[in-house]
Amino acid sequence: MSPRRARTRAAGVAWNAAGVADLSELRGLMRRFSDERDWGQFHDPKSVLLALVGEVGELAELFQWLPADDARRLAESDPLRTRAGEEMADVLLYLVLLADVLDIDLADAARRKLADAERRFPPASVTGQAPERP
Amino acid sequence: MSPRRARTRAAGVAWNAAGVADLSELRGLMRRFSDERDWGQFHDPKSVLLALVGEVGELAELFQWLPADDARRLAESDPLRTRAGEEMADVLLYLVLLADVLDIDLADAARRKLADAERRFPPASVTGQAPERP
Amino acid sequence: MSPRRARTRAAGVAWNAAGVADLSELRGLMRRFSDERDWGQFHDPKSVLLALVGEVGELAELFQWLPADDARRLAESDPLRTRAGEEMADVLLYLVLLADVLDIDLADAARRKLADAERRFPPASVTGQAPERP
Amino acid sequence: MSPRRARTRAAGVAWNAAGVADLSELRGLMRRFSDERDWGQFHDPKSVLLALVGEVGELAELFQWLPADDARRLAESDPLRTRAGEEMADVLLYLVLLADVLDIDLADAARRKLADAERRFPPASVTGQAPERP
Repeated sequence: MSPRRARTRAAGVAWNAAGVADLSELRGLMRRFSDERDWGQFHDPKSVLLALVGEVGELAELFQWLPADDARRLAESDPLRTRAGEEMADVLLYLVLLADVLDIDLADAARRKLADAERRFPPASVTGQAPERP
Repeated sequence: MSPRRARTRAAGVAWNAAGVADLSELRGLMRRFSDERDWGQFHDPKSVLLALVGEVGELAELFQWLPADDARRLAESDPLRTRAGEEMADVLLYLVLLADVLDIDLADAARRKLADAERRFPPASVTGQAPERP
Repeated sequence: MSPRRARTRAAGVAWNAAGVADLSELRGLMRRFSDERDWGQFHDPKSVLLALVGEVGELAELFQWLPADDARRLAESDPLRTRAGEEMADVLLYLVLLADVLDIDLADAARRKLADAERRFPPASVTGQAPERP
Repeated sequence: MSPRRARTRAAGVAWNAAGVADLSELRGLMRRFSDERDWGQFHDPKSVLLALVGEVGELAELFQWLPADDARRLAESDPLRTRAGEEMADVLLYLVLLADVLDIDLADAARRKLADAERRFPPASVTGQAPERP
């Protein structure tokens, strides 16, 4: 584990620079970005979803031929580290945009889904077995 | 625009309940969820990426046959609204997990990518034209 | 409908140049391509699947911002027509490769799946209603 | 290698039952299936593409948590073998449908793409190194 990771783990959660919720901040930035270019007209759900698929594809291309057991280590160094961050950022931004278009609170939906997964997969019954979807 | 949306837009950004960064909070929740079930052993990057692809597929299934122009309105009502939120939550959770596995700061990567897109697509030259990827 | 399409429709099915099954021919070509480069070592199922995802992503990027009602017409002309053919070819080739790796007869599986869909969706009960998955 | 696979490899290519090109046959079957249900109205390119994404997602779910080195062996037995065949069949059928909607000859496009890949990746220069996209 890298020192940086260990530190974050110790802290539990971190604040961003402004102390505001990341996803709300990113939603605001995406709105401004889109408004300044008059691109909202292109953002119907199916189009944004296909854009998200495109970015997931670019992320997949970075990892497809790496040995599974070595992929994590290889992603610790550049250029893969930076490229992976960029493609994951694109996936997140389109997800935030889609949530905004659909007026869905993404953070709230994620908390609910995880709470539901905790109920469906009691640790006692699944520990160490290949997970089902969370 | 729904009242809820108008309110959020007015506020610009919102704090979550604890006033902490959403993505860090979700990362912490996912770590605990995974640790309690000893599932970290399954979370190599290619596996998590395929799980993300699976959730994107489920999201796509919700929208595939909807008329493009009507999809946003149809997603204002249940059951589509709730289902879309759940699948988007799953996509986000696996993205957060992948970022954690790769020790990538997702919020920071997204801010950088958006700043880069602002430079590459000056509003004066692209306004109202079909966007390129942000 | 283009003349070419009308002709094919009239003929029902067409033979390829050698009169052999397309998918078997493509499988043979992919085997030779891979063998000549000693690439079989990289073709575990999860890797090939991620490569397929990458190509689906590239296909999605071609269509994402096109107006839904106009996408078909726009794909009649180049450069979109050629680009779409290339990306669909890549998706098919990786699907053929994955089927070969898994020793699955793709054409047979498709015929069975379609026969099953015909039973599950009797025309009388679904005509003109948004389809479920075939 | 299973006996069945060895046999097919020996034969090089196989004919289907009717001796016609698989992809043309499947296109014909999909046309009839769609016509009988009046589903052509739903088959704009972006909708079919999202349906394809949905099926790729279902395929990914089958493999996501399998150990990479063991996935091929595990797919030799049921239920995974049958499930994988079904999901790959769905991907192929939507790809065939999309090609039909766009009036693209899928087999021809695949042969061209592979011939192009053979030129771009001369065996002498890439043998045994992680492949680029074909």
